[in-house]
Amino acid sequence: MKKYKKTDLESYTLGTTLTLELLNKKIEYVKRVYIHSKQEKNETYNKIVSICNNNKIEIIYSDKVINTLSDKENCYIIGVFEKFSCNIDYNNNHIVLINPSNMGNLGTIIRSSVGFNIKDLVIISPGVDIFDPKVIRSSMGAIFNIRFKYFDSFNDYIKLCNKRREYYPFMLKAKTNLKDVKVNNQFSLIFGNEATGLSDEYLHVGIPLIIKHTKNIDSLNLDNAVSIALYEFSKNDF
Amino acid sequence: MKKYKKTDLESYTLGTTLTLELLNKKIEYVKRVYIHSKQEKNETYNKIVSICNNNKIEIIYSDKVINTLSDKENCYIIGVFEKFSCNIDYNNNHIVLINPSNMGNLGTIIRSSVGFNIKDLVIISPGVDIFDPKVIRSSMGAIFNIRFKYFDSFNDYIKLCNKRREYYPFMLKAKTNLKDVKVNNQFSLIFGNEATGLSDEYLHVGIPLIIKHTKNIDSLNLDNAVSIALYEFSKNDF
Repeated sequence: MKKYKKTDLESYTLGTTLTLELLNKKIEYVKRVYIHSKQEKNETYNKIVSICNNNKIEIIYSDKVINTLSDKENCYIIGVFEKFSCNIDYNNNHIVLINPSNMGNLGTIIRSSVGFNIKDLVIISPGVDIFDPKVIRSSMGAIFNIRFKYFDSFNDYIKLCNKRREYYPFMLKAKTNLKDVKVNNQFSLIFGNEATGLSDEYLHVGIPLIIKHTKNIDSLNLDNAVSIALYEFSKNDF
Repeated sequence: MKKYKKTDLESYTLGTTLTLELLNKKIEYVKRVYIHSKQEKNETYNKIVSICNNNKIEIIYSDKVINTLSDKENCYIIGVFEKFSCNIDYNNNHIVLINPSNMGNLGTIIRSSVGFNIKDLVIISPGVDIFDPKVIRSSMGAIFNIRFKYFDSFNDYIKLCNKRREYYPFMLKAKTNLKDVKVNNQFSLIFGNEATGLSDEYLHVGIPLIIKHTKNIDSLNLDNAVSIALYEFSKNDF
């Protein structure tokens, strides 16, 4: 077993809690579980072993594999799963990320997204690999709770959406303030790449929105901008 | 010159933009600037050289020092500065972090905080070192635009605050929804450690607030929670 590469057909969860989340949410894709000799025989351990036994999932005790796959010292359980594809639900609200490039950001965006009950994620390629173990870890397992789909272009995506959907690109050049938005239809919240944002052509897509801030920063960090948007758009539900 | 340690009296900015921000905001603390032979002679380079020359700051051309201090390949300018202490302004709004442990989070919190015009940061020890180059990089230089102060305990901090200040601890056990808050006085937004949150004693401090989300996640990532709070609390100003 080698460290993850994008072209691999399998990926893995680094850590006990994350592996339990994988087993609870996506057991049909789990291939095997590695356990380190330093793993305590605690409640989570017992749950993992019991789920594996009940579902005939192989448990392999191997310090070597865990040391190879993990950079962190306190990672004692790793769950290996087959990478899966899924489709988004076109009747739901979506988060759309255009060419996201940071793994940590993608993970925390997924976590916030699940937190605010938007479970459909669109990624326009090229974009970071959602199955990279760093993304999975940074999502705290929320990745096993969403639907996602990669598209080659934004046009390929909107072609499949129905006409009543509202598009909200987030841009520093937008005129409408996020706090003034009124939410009626299904919506797609659209965000650009961390370094470059959205190109000007998105000024002609739907209702461009701005999260206003002082001129003392160039922009908010991407996952913070997405989280603020999620909070505002889901306010009536909480 | 060795890699940064917490006990060092100097720290440094990794990268061209960050170093320019340091020179623009905290020139009185800058000791010297290192430049790599691969650095392009572009506009930012010219600005940095010109500021250094005008202020008699030593420029050292050294690939070796830059390779030692930076893990990233495209870092070609490093600014070394003397670590400084500052005091917060007790007449302003504050962000209060109790025992923050993640450097990336602290940096992005500072960036959002400057974005929403709250420039006074309180850290209750033990907490991550604000001068670590990773915090500085993650703040995108916003750290040179705030006042901050470490306290040994929350009590030591509130003793110095005036009586009209409102305290808002953010807690999953809180009863008041963030979206329902009415802001009148000066305020302090208080957040716990990434893993443990705030202890129950904060339920008796000021008005505890909750950012409501689904049960499908345990909590929001700290910098996302802080950013959402900053957005809501500064809404009337933008």
